[in-house]
Parts: sequence; C-alpha cells; structure tokens
Amino acid sequence: MDWIEAIGMVAACCTTFSFLPQAFKIIKTRDTSAISVAMYTIFTSGTLLWLAYGMMTDNLPVILANAVTSALASVILFYKLRYK
Amino acid sequence: MDWIEAIGMVAACCTTFSFLPQAFKIIKTRDTSAISVAMYTIFTSGTLLWLAYGMMTDNLPVILANAVTSALASVILFYKLRYK
Repeated sequence: MDWIEAIGMVAACCTTFSFLPQAFKIIKTRDTSAISVAMYTIFTSGTLLWLAYGMMTDNLPVILANAVTSALASVILFYKLRYK
Repeated sequence: MDWIEAIGMVAACCTTFSFLPQAFKIIKTRDTSAISVAMYTIFTSGTLLWLAYGMMTDNLPVILANAVTSALASVILFYKLRYK
C-alpha cells in the first residue's frame, strides 16, 4: 500500500467511525434537540445506496465503510425519532 | 451512465448534501447541545483527507463531494465550538 492509499484508508476510517461518538452521546443523554431528522434520513439513505453500489461493483472497502456508517447513522436516526 | 453509476451518483448527492439541513438548523436555532464535537472534528478531518486523496488521484467526484461536505461540516463544527 503506497502513502496515497494510506491517506484514503485513514480518511475512510475517520468519516466512518466519526459517527460513533455522536451515537454514544445521544444514547447517554437522550438529548436529540439539535439533531436534524432531515440530515439523518437523507444521510442514512445515502449510505444504504452506497452499500448497494459497493455490492454491485464488488468494492469491499465501500461495502465495509457504509455497512458501519449506515448502522451508526440508523441508531442516531432511531433515537431522534424516538426522543424528538 | 449505466444505472449502477446512477446509484453511486445519487448516493454521493445524499451523503454530501444531507449536511445542509443540519447546518441550517444550527444556524437558525444556535442549539448545538446534542451535537458531538468529537464527531465533527473527526468527520471534518476525514473529509479534508478525502479531498487531498481526490486531488492526488485526479478523482473529480471525490474532490467535489468532499469539498462541499467539508465546508458544511466545518460550519457545523464552528457553531458547536462557538455556541457550546
């Protein structure tokens, strides 16, 4: 793996796992007032489309990144809908 | 463009522009209590790394998507740091 690919891997890890602290914060506080339901509805749909795209093009990094991100985004969306 | 590429394009638009309603909501309400500063710090860094990756690999869709997303995520991060 050359250093350009390494940058791509670090970028993918950042944009994927960055939703973990947001999910933890909401699960802990149940405070979702500032969270946009429109954002997480559109974003979660987008990650599911990326997941489908990754499967259709046999692209494992896209599949793995978006499987994790869509799961985390769905948790945040669930809490937003549950605890307006 | 075949329909698989079309799914990729729609996915990219969703995950990019989904941050727009979150940015509008925070600008309007100044309420950032539920927003995770860790998420937006890591996420913004990730999109900037994707932007660098896109430039180094001459990948215009990656450049455009992450230019827009990093700008929107930076606005959200700025308001979070400004209006704790």
